Amino acid sequence: SVNPDLASERQTPSFSVEKLTFRLDGGAEHTRIRRAVVEAIECDPEFSRENQYFQSQNERYEAAVRKAVHLQKKMHEMGWTESGPEFKYIYRALSGDVAFLLHRIFMRSISVLGSDKQIAKWIPLATQFQLIGSYAQTELGHGTYLQGLETTADFDITTQEFILNTPKISAMKWWPGDMGRSATHTVVFAQLHVHGKCYGVHPFIVQIRSLQDHSLCAGVTAGDIGPKMNFEHVDNGYLMLQNVRVPRENMLNKFCEVQPDGTYVRRGSQKINYFTMTTVRISLIADEVIIPLMKACTIAIRYSVVRRQSKLKPGEQEAKILDYQTQQEKLLPPLAAAYAFHFLNDYLQELFDKGYREIQRKNFDTLPELHAFSSGFKAMVTQYCTSAVEICLRACGGHGYSLLSGLPSLYTKILASCIYEGENTILLLQTARFLIKCFMAASAGQSVPPSVTYLAAVKPGKCPAKNKSDFLSPDIYTEAYQHTAVRLISSTAAKLQDLIQSGVKKHDAWNQCTVQLVQAAKAHCHYITVKNFAETVEKLETRAGIQKIMKHLCDLFALHGIFSNAGVFLHDGYISGAQMDMVTASYLDLLAVIRKDAVPLVDAFDFTDKSLNSALGSYDGQVYQRLYEWAQKSPTNKQMSPAYERYLKPLLHNTLSKL
Amino acid sequence: SVNPDLASERQTPSFSVEKLTFRLDGGAEHTRIRRAVVEAIECDPEFSRENQYFQSQNERYEAAVRKAVHLQKKMHEMGWTESGPEFKYIYRALSGDVAFLLHRIFMRSISVLGSDKQIAKWIPLATQFQLIGSYAQTELGHGTYLQGLETTADFDITTQEFILNTPKISAMKWWPGDMGRSATHTVVFAQLHVHGKCYGVHPFIVQIRSLQDHSLCAGVTAGDIGPKMNFEHVDNGYLMLQNVRVPRENMLNKFCEVQPDGTYVRRGSQKINYFTMTTVRISLIADEVIIPLMKACTIAIRYSVVRRQSKLKPGEQEAKILDYQTQQEKLLPPLAAAYAFHFLNDYLQELFDKGYREIQRKNFDTLPELHAFSSGFKAMVTQYCTSAVEICLRACGGHGYSLLSGLPSLYTKILASCIYEGENTILLLQTARFLIKCFMAASAGQSVPPSVTYLAAVKPGKCPAKNKSDFLSPDIYTEAYQHTAVRLISSTAAKLQDLIQSGVKKHDAWNQCTVQLVQAAKAHCHYITVKNFAETVEKLETRAGIQKIMKHLCDLFALHGIFSNAGVFLHDGYISGAQMDMVTASYLDLLAVIRKDAVPLVDAFDFTDKSLNSALGSYDGQVYQRLYEWAQKSPTNKQMSPAYERYLKPLLHNTLSKL
Repeated sequence: SVNPDLASERQTPSFSVEKLTFRLDGGAEHTRIRRAVVEAIECDPEFSRENQYFQSQNERYEAAVRKAVHLQKKMHEMGWTESGPEFKYIYRALSGDVAFLLHRIFMRSISVLGSDKQIAKWIPLATQFQLIGSYAQTELGHGTYLQGLETTADFDITTQEFILNTPKISAMKWWPGDMGRSATHTVVFAQLHVHGKCYGVHPFIVQIRSLQDHSLCAGVTAGDIGPKMNFEHVDNGYLMLQNVRVPRENMLNKFCEVQPDGTYVRRGSQKINYFTMTTVRISLIADEVIIPLMKACTIAIRYSVVRRQSKLKPGEQEAKILDYQTQQEKLLPPLAAAYAFHFLNDYLQELFDKGYREIQRKNFDTLPELHAFSSGFKAMVTQYCTSAVEICLRACGGHGYSLLSGLPSLYTKILASCIYEGENTILLLQTARFLIKCFMAASAGQSVPPSVTYLAAVKPGKCPAKNKSDFLSPDIYTEAYQHTAVRLISSTAAKLQDLIQSGVKKHDAWNQCTVQLVQAAKAHCHYITVKNFAETVEKLETRAGIQKIMKHLCDLFALHGIFSNAGVFLHDGYISGAQMDMVTASYLDLLAVIRKDAVPLVDAFDFTDKSLNSALGSYDGQVYQRLYEWAQKSPTNKQMSPAYERYLKPLLHNTLSKL
Repeated sequence: SVNPDLASERQTPSFSVEKLTFRLDGGAEHTRIRRAVVEAIECDPEFSRENQYFQSQNERYEAAVRKAVHLQKKMHEMGWTESGPEFKYIYRALSGDVAFLLHRIFMRSISVLGSDKQIAKWIPLATQFQLIGSYAQTELGHGTYLQGLETTADFDITTQEFILNTPKISAMKWWPGDMGRSATHTVVFAQLHVHGKCYGVHPFIVQIRSLQDHSLCAGVTAGDIGPKMNFEHVDNGYLMLQNVRVPRENMLNKFCEVQPDGTYVRRGSQKINYFTMTTVRISLIADEVIIPLMKACTIAIRYSVVRRQSKLKPGEQEAKILDYQTQQEKLLPPLAAAYAFHFLNDYLQELFDKGYREIQRKNFDTLPELHAFSSGFKAMVTQYCTSAVEICLRACGGHGYSLLSGLPSLYTKILASCIYEGENTILLLQTARFLIKCFMAASAGQSVPPSVTYLAAVKPGKCPAKNKSDFLSPDIYTEAYQHTAVRLISSTAAKLQDLIQSGVKKHDAWNQCTVQLVQAAKAHCHYITVKNFAETVEKLETRAGIQKIMKHLCDLFALHGIFSNAGVFLHDGYISGAQMDMVTASYLDLLAVIRKDAVPLVDAFDFTDKSLNSALGSYDGQVYQRLYEWAQKSPTNKQMSPAYERYLKPLLHNTLSKL
């Protein structure tokens, strides 16, 4: 039975929830396939996440390995393949709680960096799991700056081998997933030395554990890096190598090779690698960032209509907390953001598919733009969604703080996305570098990539809005975002130029502008996101109420952004104080409008109870009952604590040595 | 041996670190006592936190109980008493990792709410630990709104007992610390019913577990609420009561009593209770909020001078990450905030001591102001410090994400402070209510409490700063904060008035203004914090360089606040766009200045390595060595995982049923 306070929210949605779900999935057929995958996985007890919040790191790891092995059987049984339409839904259905993800990166790196001969040798072994692979790049002392990696690989011409070493503690590999306990092989990135000359970082396939008994190979020290904020199911590992020898053929040599006589040969273009990193950043946005935010919104919004607290009107029943403006202000902008980023992701996917086709035709022209896009949007979306999940957690008060709400683990996991695959600040500065370059080019009348042609149109101007309803016009707010992005980029470019002209060295000048460069890069990404949302809404079908509600969300996303970054819009008077009051008024009005459809809007994400794994967010809204039932299962309730006999009883019975 | 990259940071501090430590402690004698307590506790292996990051919830609970019991012996052994000068340092030295904190609240509630007779009966039992107490207020369905509590206590005139019941699941007590597994008694808050009439919420002493064998008493269901984001060492519990009878004398009856014939008598003033809640909010600020922030700053800043990554100047050694402007922007404002809030806390303590003296003289005039203060500052400081700790964590990249850095547990713990003892949004609205009331009074020419007399001085005006160095004048920036606070309060008051005059009901009008009311309350608290910091700096001794460096920090705190909330300062043109550029320039200059003293400034907090319990933050900066040593101790490295025999071996050896 559905909690009546939740049921009432579903009675008169302004749009068709099912049709919106189809739209989010990219069509009814995709929805059907997704649901079939979810159903197959969730009804299989081997994939259960039921006791997850009670498990130790060891138990989580073991479960993830068990699931990964079982998944192989399941895929065979169901007829699912890695290239089939079901595949992308499997990871979502498992909520990522599965081992051997790095095994796939191991395979991908060989496919991309290896020669045909290497591919022919290793890929079948990996596909059949005759080995378990990992990918060892990051070291204790180096993450961001890959040129600084300290692991060495010396070519020994007499034996035709590379000798791999960890020359100092900071060179120890640290973080590679699946490596702490599972992997038998890994791709090690090391500084290649031939005849004492260093040729930079190269990838080597290294066996680290016995295929017979899983013991560590000679010269190898490896283990688990210990507890983390999340990812307990992953055995992130450390690795030290002492004179570990691998044959010459183990250097992945599609692009460069050490010949038997020690001659180093570089061939072909490495730009494609660059593109691989770029696509990884884009591909994580949907699974690791947007879906967790959608889950957090679902949990917090459903909870906020069954939780009643205090009275809004004297003498009446206690109010649903979502009826308080402050609660709407917490939860509805994250909801709008989830939709904004979903549509942004569609746009990015399309852009990258197009880019990929170009690159296959050896046209690398779009690479800088795609790199800047992937960096900036990865940073913006992970940052925004991490904050938004934290807001959802805190908006649920004490119950949000319980692991049983599901929100803490969503938060601690999404937080990592701000750090991995490029630390966000570093990424934003890469985007900023691209923007400054384009701005200079545009100012000099040169042509620039399509996404930044707007930089050429620097004009002071004022926002033409005359009343609060003008701010519900996408042209008005998109223009404001564009203006602000141009202003921030151009003013930072000017500061940079001034510093250099006043004699400051180029690198110092750059460093002195980085706080503002980050701000400029964010403004650019924010502008593109708003623009894309508005353009998407424009193209949506007008039937079934979908365009209308999406327009509200788009307006909310845009106006919330102006309201909460008011400074950058007010700075040069493009938006006046009086206009900012209109923005605020329109923004607050929208909260009340969207609040009515809040539950249907999260229902459209179509998460099952099992995938949410939350005592607060279930479809039926039976919150308190579930919290109580789940708590009873906690290991802390399994037995009387030994602490009683050891400490409490002597204390209470005064048999402790005299206090 | 100290890492040379850290040692070099300590060579030429601009001030005396030791003298600053004395100032923070309130004098050299306090520093001496604190260090003696820390020394005594840290050299006692019973209090070790060494393996904390590897322990399960069960193990953490057991350790906390063991420490609490051992602490009783230790205090006796050391001659420490609860009223002695050492007492306040004990909790800090234990990093709060100890049981029976609610036992103290149990005692405090009896002392405050109980009659002399009740105090005489219960306090000695509690003091001697012949019982273990807890405090059961919050329920599954009610936290913020205490009037809504659903537990009932019916007076049975025939037996002269109260019958306590949990009438529905939402009435279950939920969260009380020490109750899930330890407590034998608790103070239960319940709706008092006599002859069918409800008299509201009252406190009752209820025994829940046997003093003989610790089994649950008849009619009592209790247990642990399960895993949380932190506080694994605390057995937060649930409690259901079914016709549990307690004698009439168990209702705490200093202020109201049910007489044998069922007559309900209320006597004296309950305002003092109000004051108790208020003082708890203030007292948690130092221990639970400021100290964790100081620890996080210490860890992140020490790490940022031993971590080298990428090159700032081509051809040179890789740079310390604290030399990057973006890293300074992350870490130095939190450092300045730690000092700002430390001095704010001194101010609040003084204010409350004064208030307490007045109240003992039955003068309750300052209560509304103190309540508004405690609410607003609790909310502002917990919010600010929680965000700051998260920034510190993220600023350490992957290593910050490891539990071994100490940062995740600082974060997950401080996060709770935004929720407990009054959810922050609710608290800010209480402050706002006070501010609006005072603003109306001041506008009508009535007198208002001293802290808000500034509200009477509404004047439009413009900031007089002419160049960036003008913004290093405390008068200039304090005035800007004051102006902004007045503007936000007065404009929200005006909106509220307008709505009411246009016919909107008062409570609806209030709700429609709450987003802006929260903003106004924050602005008020921010203003007072800046003002107090500036006034404190004014009074500091000028020798030993302390005043100078504190002045820099005060400037940074103030300008960072303007820079990051630019919108509210620009809105009415009080600060112009050109002036905002000056603010930005001064702010960025200050980062470079304070960066030089960053390590001495965290050294002055004087945390021992054991109290930081961080692989990144130790005094010697041997970061990588420690991460590796600690990781090896993880239970994940204790044995070959059973997952190998069960899953990996069959997979690798292809003995799984055919894939």
